[in-house]
Amino acid sequence: MHILVLGGAGMVGRKFIERLARDGELGGKTVSKVTAQDVVAAHAPAATPFIFDAVVSDMSIEGEAEVLIASRPDLIVHLAAIVSGEAEADFDKGYRINLDGTRHLFEAIRKVGGGYKPRVVFTSSIAVFGAPFHDKIEDEFFTTPLTSYGTQKAIGELLLADYSRRGFFDGVGIRLPTVCVRPGTPNKAASGFFSNIIREPLNGIDAVLPVSDQVRHWHASPRSAVGFLVHAATMDTGAIGPRRTLTMPGYSCTVAEQIEALRKVAGEGVVARIKRVPDPVIDGIVAGWPRNFNPQRALQLGFKAESSFEEIIRVHIEDELHGTFVK
Amino acid sequence: MHILVLGGAGMVGRKFIERLARDGELGGKTVSKVTAQDVVAAHAPAATPFIFDAVVSDMSIEGEAEVLIASRPDLIVHLAAIVSGEAEADFDKGYRINLDGTRHLFEAIRKVGGGYKPRVVFTSSIAVFGAPFHDKIEDEFFTTPLTSYGTQKAIGELLLADYSRRGFFDGVGIRLPTVCVRPGTPNKAASGFFSNIIREPLNGIDAVLPVSDQVRHWHASPRSAVGFLVHAATMDTGAIGPRRTLTMPGYSCTVAEQIEALRKVAGEGVVARIKRVPDPVIDGIVAGWPRNFNPQRALQLGFKAESSFEEIIRVHIEDELHGTFVK
Ligand SMILES: NC(=O)c1ccc[n+]([C@@H]2O[C@H](COP(=O)([O-])OP(=O)(O)OC[C@H]3O[C@@H](n4cnc5c(N)ncnc54)[C@H](O)[C@@H]3O)[C@@H](O)[C@H]2O)c1
Ligand SMILES: NC(=O)c1ccc[n+]([C@@H]2O[C@H](COP(=O)([O-])OP(=O)(O)OC[C@H]3O[C@@H](n4cnc5c(N)ncnc54)[C@H](O)[C@@H]3O)[C@@H](O)[C@H]2O)c1
Repeated sequence: MHILVLGGAGMVGRKFIERLARDGELGGKTVSKVTAQDVVAAHAPAATPFIFDAVVSDMSIEGEAEVLIASRPDLIVHLAAIVSGEAEADFDKGYRINLDGTRHLFEAIRKVGGGYKPRVVFTSSIAVFGAPFHDKIEDEFFTTPLTSYGTQKAIGELLLADYSRRGFFDGVGIRLPTVCVRPGTPNKAASGFFSNIIREPLNGIDAVLPVSDQVRHWHASPRSAVGFLVHAATMDTGAIGPRRTLTMPGYSCTVAEQIEALRKVAGEGVVARIKRVPDPVIDGIVAGWPRNFNPQRALQLGFKAESSFEEIIRVHIEDELHGTFVK
Repeated sequence: MHILVLGGAGMVGRKFIERLARDGELGGKTVSKVTAQDVVAAHAPAATPFIFDAVVSDMSIEGEAEVLIASRPDLIVHLAAIVSGEAEADFDKGYRINLDGTRHLFEAIRKVGGGYKPRVVFTSSIAVFGAPFHDKIEDEFFTTPLTSYGTQKAIGELLLADYSRRGFFDGVGIRLPTVCVRPGTPNKAASGFFSNIIREPLNGIDAVLPVSDQVRHWHASPRSAVGFLVHAATMDTGAIGPRRTLTMPGYSCTVAEQIEALRKVAGEGVVARIKRVPDPVIDGIVAGWPRNFNPQRALQLGFKAESSFEEIIRVHIEDELHGTFVK
């Protein structure tokens, strides 16, 4: 099978493609080719049992999606997006990439016609929810985003459902929890500290905690995020019905519990590298974020995430640190 | 004040403009000009205390919205839409008018800048909800439309909220119940019979009831719909917060109750003109429609509808039939 990954040079895309390279197959079908499209060049994993094609293009430009779809990929994983902060800072860019880009892609698939009906996996976000909400957000809670990014993702969900209902493709939308521990270097996302306070101390580096340790949030590891993609790509969509987007499972905990888990897994010396430097701006932003979910439908449909934060830390140490860390 | 009504030649637009002509003012401000834009020419009410300008254009064509906004209307009432059946039959046309048209309008307002921040009233629909739902749909229930029309309206709601949050305009979205009794001649909408079985018999004409009389639905009169627009145009939006679209109040009843109300108001002879001719197709469509709501927020914010179906019939007789009907 031929898999097209839009935004394939990003964090989740890279890890998804690495998994495909390891498995060689998806849902029992041999993967013959992976096209990783992105505005920056995606790098091939060390060893790939399939043809790997890195396409550098901007999928929000009219006509680019047609080029990508011309070869009729069997599976399309749409990860391309600019994140919350950038979409808020640049209104036009956010709508162009996150909304128009998604719509161009869906239109390009529809226009192929002739029975072409690929599986399309779309990564939405819990940013489709806006405060006030219940402590545990249920599957039927309404989407009232408080950012342009969340608005664009919510619109993507609606389009995905309508195009699927019409039979133009077979879409599955997955609302990812905040992926933690995010590998790489600290980034400017307001949510960055959730990962920084684990990743940096394990590397022997101090990290700043800008919020109260009573802040509660919703997490899943990069390994789980890839697992969600694999399941969304291979599951029987007959069971989903017309409500095509699902809130993914995750693990809800406070920052204090994150720190306690780090202490158990890595010891006091590592925890001591977390420096508390309250930042009222970040505190304010984070106060409007969802804390917990009751993702019944996704669980029933077979999606799985971690069930403790220790597990999330251990996944990071295994997958990113070859099993070791700086004591 | 200058009021721009998009879709001003339609049923609700016409009645809204008639009310403006009667009142001469809106929210205490004298109405100096009304621009009624539509793809067909809107007719001026008999006597208008303001300048009436009928603009014939297609607001979905790029650039048309800019022309309409150039004069910086103080209030913009966006009613232009193609309805459910047509948007389902013609996918491209539905997205072009109901989605792109709305977005062009919002963009045109945003691009004026320089402190221009008009009130924008957007008419959404209970078609943003898709079965299965609770018997009484609450304000926080999620929007999972089962038609392209409902999808386009739900996207309009999201855009309205984001553009308002950003401060580009001051938007209020109102989800209209099925407006009943719809004046004019029977139309092809699947919901047409709710009005046909009242309007036609009162005119001495037989009408077909294609569904079981146990079908329950959510109604408000055209007079109430105009009242919603007036309130949405004049209310203090400080109380709405970021959740800019509200499910409007209405009256929930079964077709049997509608018929019983008609009997009370107009007598057995009129009711005898309703002919039961079951149509399984219409029955199937209607089975997926919302039946009842608990529109707490709208009620708290001062929106008002009828509290009995008799009242809805009496409004029709007063407003459309000069107080009489064919016995
Ligand atoms: N990581 C998370 O915590 C999280 C949470 C919720 C949702 N998501 C969503 O999951 C997806 C993947 O997340 P990620 O963490 O890998 O993000 P990422 O930022 O690492 O990757 C996104 C990729 O999209 C690419 N991209 C941006 N504009 C593009 C364009 N016009 N054409 C092609 N590619 C373009 C970027 O270059 C980037 O490589 C995104 O859609 C994101 O919104 C992520
Ligand atoms: N009547 C109802 O029961 C009901 C229920 C829910 C929502 N609504 C919404 O309320 C609004 C008004 O409803 P209505 O009953 O008056 O509908 P209507 O069909 O009578 O009026 C809509 C008007 O929009 C015009 N229009 C269509 N495309 C246009 C374009 N490209 N540019 C300019 N004008 C265009 C049509 O010509 C028509 O005159 C619509 O947006 C409708 O979707 C109505």
